[in-house]
Amino acid sequence: MRKTNNLPIGVFDSGVGGLTVLQALRQHLPNESFLYLGDTARLPYGTKSANTVINYSLQACQQLVNFGIKLLVVACNTASAHALPRLQQTFPDIPVIGVIEPGARAAVQASASGHIAVIATEATIHHQAYEKAILTFNPKASVIGKSCPLFVALAEEGWIEGDIPERTAQHYLTPLFENARSSDCLVLGCTHFPAMLPAIRKALATDISIVDSASTTAETVAQVLEKYNLLCDADRDAHLTFLATDNKERFVRVAKNLLEYDIPEASIELIDFKA
Amino acid sequence: MRKTNNLPIGVFDSGVGGLTVLQALRQHLPNESFLYLGDTARLPYGTKSANTVINYSLQACQQLVNFGIKLLVVACNTASAHALPRLQQTFPDIPVIGVIEPGARAAVQASASGHIAVIATEATIHHQAYEKAILTFNPKASVIGKSCPLFVALAEEGWIEGDIPERTAQHYLTPLFENARSSDCLVLGCTHFPAMLPAIRKALATDISIVDSASTTAETVAQVLEKYNLLCDADRDAHLTFLATDNKERFVRVAKNLLEYDIPEASIELIDFKA
Repeated sequence: MRKTNNLPIGVFDSGVGGLTVLQALRQHLPNESFLYLGDTARLPYGTKSANTVINYSLQACQQLVNFGIKLLVVACNTASAHALPRLQQTFPDIPVIGVIEPGARAAVQASASGHIAVIATEATIHHQAYEKAILTFNPKASVIGKSCPLFVALAEEGWIEGDIPERTAQHYLTPLFENARSSDCLVLGCTHFPAMLPAIRKALATDISIVDSASTTAETVAQVLEKYNLLCDADRDAHLTFLATDNKERFVRVAKNLLEYDIPEASIELIDFKA
Repeated sequence: MRKTNNLPIGVFDSGVGGLTVLQALRQHLPNESFLYLGDTARLPYGTKSANTVINYSLQACQQLVNFGIKLLVVACNTASAHALPRLQQTFPDIPVIGVIEPGARAAVQASASGHIAVIATEATIHHQAYEKAILTFNPKASVIGKSCPLFVALAEEGWIEGDIPERTAQHYLTPLFENARSSDCLVLGCTHFPAMLPAIRKALATDISIVDSASTTAETVAQVLEKYNLLCDADRDAHLTFLATDNKERFVRVAKNLLEYDIPEASIELIDFKA
């Protein structure tokens, strides 16, 4: 008989942006239950140092592991960039999957020229996380990175259409695609950026592929569950639980702005790492 | 003989924005020494809940008090809005001065009509901190508030001139000043916003007074030092010490973007609240 596992999948993010990854996971794995933790008390991670990101990630993921999960998805690009090896080391009994490697693999598949542009937070760009991952899949690739901090503020406010988002996208993206050896693929290396897609598409030529990690990460998770006999029973009802470290009201509002995702405030449990 | 006190003045901020207050303090009090603490590991405070802001502020200010200070300035508007009474209670032996009350007093003085607009972070607006303070000085005043989160991101990036900052300022400010009972005074209720002044001025009619708390807070501090015989000796050389909880490199960069302020990275000491 095929083995199954009905524990939830843990999804860790610095805040609310990881809901874009959760959404892709639920589309790929409709029967699975998920336990989502957003470290809203300490967001954003994208402007913090590597050490701080590692410490905060270890603390948050320990909580998810304590609750009981069968697999851990690190939905935050910055945490994936800095903390993934430490998290894999610290939790050897469960698969720990980040978003950078799946995103890098998808970019290499999508780019014919091997010239790939990556937009992300300051920390992810500074760490050259996508560049390193892309080069492991295609050592001949060339990668250009750009941090786009305003996209995070715009997405969290739900200000995703119109003049200012479009001009901001032009300001960030035009320099990445204007020279002769221009990229033919753009990686959205931050969970907030899919919300900015309408403005990003307007700023780009139509023949540029846009890759975001959410969907490819969900495919990777599905494969790993299959491989290790960790899928849930087929007749299970999926459960969704949200944990946050601060400010439930804002969690609900930003989820709505980012994804038009309605989360009842009562379904979010506040947790405190000191407890 | 007149008593003096040569301990530094402590300046607490959630990050780097409080340097605008430090700059005003140094202009008013050129002989005084300052110990500035930016809680860069946990910034921004402007999106966090009241409880979290209070806890973080207590922890940070305890560090400043442990170092030895004669007066504490809470430069962060959000921390002033939420945590000032608790900080005053916790540190009864030194004067603790926030930025909201001086800013509110200056606004009441500047506004002939009593209609005052306030722009700030989400948390400061949500808490109606300026509104409450303004009404204590002028119970007939009417106050309208608006959170402008994009200004923080723009200011931190140093993106303070041109099309996008100007249109963003129009987007936020035009609705505040378009009806018949319009305000005649705008309070910049966030330490980052003075950096956006060129764009803000372009979006406003010329007869609107702009008030920022930095200068009036510095005047208040000077008066309190005088009153309690806490001024330093007149022949003292001023010393400036910076403490940060994370990412010195970004501290230096944002200080440069916000204020064209050159702080050598080596002059910033990293501290950890767990230590």
